[in-house]
Amino acid sequence: MDRFFLGVDLGGTFIKGGVVDEGGRVVARAAVATQAAEGQDVVIGRLHALLEDLARACPAGRKAVTAAGIGVAGAIDGTRGLLRFAPNLPGWSDVPLGRMLAERLGLPTALENDANAAAVGEHWVGAGRDCSTFVLYTLGTGVGGGLVLDGRLWRGRDGAAGELGHVVIHPGGDPCGCGRQGCLEAYASATAILRRLRAIPGAVAADSAPTVFRRAAAGDAACRRVLADAVEALGIAIAGMIHVLNPERILVGGGVAQAGEPLFGPLRDAVRRHALPVLAEGVTILPALLGEDAGLIGAAGCALKQFATSAS
Amino acid sequence: MDRFFLGVDLGGTFIKGGVVDEGGRVVARAAVATQAAEGQDVVIGRLHALLEDLARACPAGRKAVTAAGIGVAGAIDGTRGLLRFAPNLPGWSDVPLGRMLAERLGLPTALENDANAAAVGEHWVGAGRDCSTFVLYTLGTGVGGGLVLDGRLWRGRDGAAGELGHVVIHPGGDPCGCGRQGCLEAYASATAILRRLRAIPGAVAADSAPTVFRRAAAGDAACRRVLADAVEALGIAIAGMIHVLNPERILVGGGVAQAGEPLFGPLRDAVRRHALPVLAEGVTILPALLGEDAGLIGAAGCALKQFATSAS
Repeated sequence: MDRFFLGVDLGGTFIKGGVVDEGGRVVARAAVATQAAEGQDVVIGRLHALLEDLARACPAGRKAVTAAGIGVAGAIDGTRGLLRFAPNLPGWSDVPLGRMLAERLGLPTALENDANAAAVGEHWVGAGRDCSTFVLYTLGTGVGGGLVLDGRLWRGRDGAAGELGHVVIHPGGDPCGCGRQGCLEAYASATAILRRLRAIPGAVAADSAPTVFRRAAAGDAACRRVLADAVEALGIAIAGMIHVLNPERILVGGGVAQAGEPLFGPLRDAVRRHALPVLAEGVTILPALLGEDAGLIGAAGCALKQFATSAS
Repeated sequence: MDRFFLGVDLGGTFIKGGVVDEGGRVVARAAVATQAAEGQDVVIGRLHALLEDLARACPAGRKAVTAAGIGVAGAIDGTRGLLRFAPNLPGWSDVPLGRMLAERLGLPTALENDANAAAVGEHWVGAGRDCSTFVLYTLGTGVGGGLVLDGRLWRGRDGAAGELGHVVIHPGGDPCGCGRQGCLEAYASATAILRRLRAIPGAVAADSAPTVFRRAAAGDAACRRVLADAVEALGIAIAGMIHVLNPERILVGGGVAQAGEPLFGPLRDAVRRHALPVLAEGVTILPALLGEDAGLIGAAGCALKQFATSAS
């Protein structure tokens, strides 16, 4: 019998979910507002209701749903199955979210950091599909990431690996939302790009990273400068990663990466400038493929890997 | 029957080797000058002769020698068993050193980067013994490193992982021997510490890193400044590593690390300054244990892991 997996991307504004088949295709979707301000019980109730809706929407019936996966921005303690904290869910602390949902749903439920889940998704059916060792950077509101090493998600000592946005690139540099200075996220997130543009005297504010890329292409000097800084910071980060891990591939996803070649061309040059040639030459730097669906497909992929890898 | 392994550290000045038992103890030693200037054939001849001497020195006889391992500074292509290049062995390029020695010795022979070998040694009988995931930094003439992930040496796509000395810490900063700028090695190697001290107007030159630590302890401002920069750079590098890999432990070895607490105290503070507290709090930063023997014990450990792990 075909098996299906529920995947949910629990964000600060929306909860987006899907029913995903064993080939990684999304066969049904649903979304609700998170209503994070109404507190943990309300959010978990809405999340549970969404998962029940999705299970009912499974084309082969609820019984074909094998497991569920939840991806959420935040620190996951994989050993104890806890959401330690989540920047977009104020007040949540050490919540055993996987177990709580497993009990309500009657389904095994995996809990994973959203960027880690995205890496699992890209490995399953995206730009890392035919690749055993890659690093994914996601450039969105913040900067996150995930590592797939020898075909498996690398979670680290307690599930916190892949915090790629808070690697310090420019010591003493721009302030970061985390309270420190010079982090990758302070240069290469969409938020940072817009903030740094606003800080340039005389620059016209932009409402999104794609706007900044468009204006840069049209010759706007302030936009070019801000994007050059973002690319340089990301290039330094990726070059460092190449020295440490010697991966096959680097993937870059998230809203900022939708710019395509105007990002990837200069980024490849920046990596070459900051990496030993012998290490840089064999690494491919590619856009992630799953876009907005990376989180939910990846969460379903985590459910598959954690609870259903042995069957076919 | 007890089994023994030959381990060799092939350096630019000396070839140091040992006979190592299954418990990681060095039971016999030998060393010769490398004579790198006399060319590849001479060096390989001297290396082979040293290995034959060691095999004869095995307390249980030559027949008890199960395999040999060679650690060498340079880029190893593990897939093809090649020494791609070695900074201390001018002119060597794509040398199948493992296979060449295996044929001459009649023993399976492992080839590994020296810092990777040191990580294997620390994992086997050193400061990483009871630990499944750690990163070793070696601060000597250069800065190298090795990663042990889930109990195994992480070699990367083609054996080049762990080039920790050439991660860029200060973009646009001090020139590095690799031709780029701002690498960790340009601040935290013994060479860099001495060079940066000489560059301070009025500073008294030192002949070794321990001298610089001694003078710093006695209040010498120039020595303090150079060491503070080295510690800061290493702290930034380690904090980045903690964000990426979420390891259990960080080990620091090599000549510079022999300073002990005057290095490790400020280093732990620097890591705390540059890492998210939730990630930094569970990581232990410790001195490596094997000192000068790390390379040869580790090379023997590589031979054991590669050729003799199944037996007891």
